[in-house]
Amino acid sequence: MSSKNKKAVVIVSGGMDSVTLAYQLKHEGYDLTMISFDYGQRHGKELGMASWHADKLAASSFLLDISGIQPLLKGSALTDDIEVPHGHYAEDSMKLTVVPNRNAIMLSIAWGVACSQGADILACGVHAGDHHVYPDCRPEFIENLNSALRVGTDGHRSEGLELYAPFIHKTKTDIAAVGGELGVPYEMTWTCYEGLDLHCGKCGACTERKEAFRDSGVPDVTEYRP
Amino acid sequence: MSSKNKKAVVIVSGGMDSVTLAYQLKHEGYDLTMISFDYGQRHGKELGMASWHADKLAASSFLLDISGIQPLLKGSALTDDIEVPHGHYAEDSMKLTVVPNRNAIMLSIAWGVACSQGADILACGVHAGDHHVYPDCRPEFIENLNSALRVGTDGHRSEGLELYAPFIHKTKTDIAAVGGELGVPYEMTWTCYEGLDLHCGKCGACTERKEAFRDSGVPDVTEYRP
Repeated sequence: MSSKNKKAVVIVSGGMDSVTLAYQLKHEGYDLTMISFDYGQRHGKELGMASWHADKLAASSFLLDISGIQPLLKGSALTDDIEVPHGHYAEDSMKLTVVPNRNAIMLSIAWGVACSQGADILACGVHAGDHHVYPDCRPEFIENLNSALRVGTDGHRSEGLELYAPFIHKTKTDIAAVGGELGVPYEMTWTCYEGLDLHCGKCGACTERKEAFRDSGVPDVTEYRP
Repeated sequence: MSSKNKKAVVIVSGGMDSVTLAYQLKHEGYDLTMISFDYGQRHGKELGMASWHADKLAASSFLLDISGIQPLLKGSALTDDIEVPHGHYAEDSMKLTVVPNRNAIMLSIAWGVACSQGADILACGVHAGDHHVYPDCRPEFIENLNSALRVGTDGHRSEGLELYAPFIHKTKTDIAAVGGELGVPYEMTWTCYEGLDLHCGKCGACTERKEAFRDSGVPDVTEYRP
């Protein structure tokens, strides 16, 4: 099925999942608008990578600064001075990395943009590996939010607009396999929770990244710290 | 029923409805956190008034700057250079004042704050007079969004947290009557869509404000432009 000339707004962090999603949408023929958020995360490395992919995919690209809300969203190692937990991603300690309600915030803003643009889909890269730790990555959240946003913009260019989360039942390994097929330049994606010069290779996110490449058979071109 | 020591987060624009709501919650004994948004609206007069009421009610108060999203939310006279429509509030021309998905955006951010604070309710002043023009002020939107936000923050301090929209079936006249009982200083509220020195008395919002005072019998202390 061709979706030529259809419009997609996609939220891109600069990590593996959302970047793979952007390449998939481009491959499917969508006109792409990529939106990234500066929500006060401790490092902006991934945001620069998002912008690089927008150039490569001839996509419109916007960085939205919502860092003004950060001081009120407490309790997350991604925005505060709490030490980033090491170990496996799915451990409960990773709950420290939850920014409360982050996906509802980003998706609500991006939905407003999608309405303004008359887009057909608003896409995001949530996946099954996030379900345990992040309630706002679960299918029932995406379904519920989709309903709420459609009701809330009824009659305001949201006819036909849908949240689109094609990786929601896929693992990160599945996503790496998709990206391997599409030739996604993974050296230009950033996963690590630390803001160092290279991926630390030890935090939960790095651990999951390594496993995804290993298990999918896609070469891991990431340079990790020794 | 006493709700002493319960915590409320309330979104306050500085208009009649949200200010009345803050006074009602204070009257009901809630510890109050007032949140206002700078979303790039053309004038900030009402935001200064919100802050004045926070002092008066001994409430915590935060102004969240999300104006970075404004350039992407097109098509509204409240943020763009389109002329503000005159006439009755409920006319279709007022649809020009819709900021797409504004309430979902503000409520999602405020819900994150409410989770961080362990609040019991997140209150907003949407009312029946808004239903015709603003889909994101309708009961079905509030119910749907409440479900989505609860699912999206499951296990993250949202236990028992609920969206609270006590004016959703009230008219602006009913709200003025509530405020009259509570002694809300309405001279320190701002309704007008224009950013002039005084209320214009002509735009849809001013027309509705005048009617609310007239029909409720609460004295209209507003100074309108001659």
